[in-house]
Amino acid sequence: MEEYPSKLLQNAVEQFASLPGVGRRSAMRFALQLLKWEKAEAENFGRAFIELCREIKYCKTCFNISDKEECEICSNPHRSDRIICVVEDVRDVMAIEGTQQYRGKYHVLGGIISPMDGVGPADLNIDELVQRVENTSVEEIILALSTTMEGDTTNFYLYKKLKDSEARISTIARGISFGDELEYADEITLGRSITNRVPYEGTLSR
Amino acid sequence: MEEYPSKLLQNAVEQFASLPGVGRRSAMRFALQLLKWEKAEAENFGRAFIELCREIKYCKTCFNISDKEECEICSNPHRSDRIICVVEDVRDVMAIEGTQQYRGKYHVLGGIISPMDGVGPADLNIDELVQRVENTSVEEIILALSTTMEGDTTNFYLYKKLKDSEARISTIARGISFGDELEYADEITLGRSITNRVPYEGTLSR
Repeated sequence: MEEYPSKLLQNAVEQFASLPGVGRRSAMRFALQLLKWEKAEAENFGRAFIELCREIKYCKTCFNISDKEECEICSNPHRSDRIICVVEDVRDVMAIEGTQQYRGKYHVLGGIISPMDGVGPADLNIDELVQRVENTSVEEIILALSTTMEGDTTNFYLYKKLKDSEARISTIARGISFGDELEYADEITLGRSITNRVPYEGTLSR
Repeated sequence: MEEYPSKLLQNAVEQFASLPGVGRRSAMRFALQLLKWEKAEAENFGRAFIELCREIKYCKTCFNISDKEECEICSNPHRSDRIICVVEDVRDVMAIEGTQQYRGKYHVLGGIISPMDGVGPADLNIDELVQRVENTSVEEIILALSTTMEGDTTNFYLYKKLKDSEARISTIARGISFGDELEYADEITLGRSITNRVPYEGTLSR
């Protein structure tokens, strides 16, 4: 690798390059961009990450990222405590909130079971979910994890842990996306969408 | 856009997204990655950028990024003062240094003339170059800018400013890259490489 004319520059480039999917070339571009900014802007840039990691909290109930002890969703009295939607991380919460179709609570696992990445059940907020289901009157648990091997494994593990509770366990529907053409759908998805067909409601889908 | 569950998270994501070529999705991935790190690592991450912008210096002679008043190259007595290689930014210095083919000095313009981006001659270290050439006994000035419209414009502007000096003005050779196949070369490059043909030296090119 080339030699950097400055340790400060080298350090900044190496820090950027430690982000997922960022190579040396992009990292260098980022560092040179920073140098074009006002000093105050660059200070704010660096400080945002220090503050994020220093001050971030996780909701004591659902483990979503939050600025307070309990997140906005858990402390909202208009949302039902009877349904818990189990997701991998905050991005899924944001995506589901974006649909405005869900008025229950969440439980954020903080990852999914992935032996390849060294993530086991003990690394996730699974015991906390089981306790939460035991201690409150939950009627339904929606497993909303990715449709990957890891997602399926985690679903199965959660099912075994939760099946003796009072709560009904469901997963989000899999099928052909709106706007997708049938001929391009993969076989598993198409097969499942036929097996799990639903009554036609006689309305336009959008 | 979705609503963030935390201002701290939102701020970090927005800061990342202000980097060139980084969208919201990547920015979110970066922020969640930071949260997985040790606190000390994340502090070092943020601090690297604050220190970069607070403490970085530019060499008083060639304007390359440096940790000192004068850069390693300018203060190296084994490098010739008689040749100055004019480049756009520190990346070009690093690339040329990487070839180990050049033993002269540099002059870093800090950009190229680009009316579209609002960069004019006054924004670059051009007057400093002209003064440097006037005040020292420079024999050759190598213009090593990109082969773009902006690079050509800047070359022409520099030529007009420098042509009355004692120094010879040259540009780096354009032609077919080593390992490139002729049929895939663009017409301008191929045409120039024929016009500017050089005597065959009877040795293997690598």
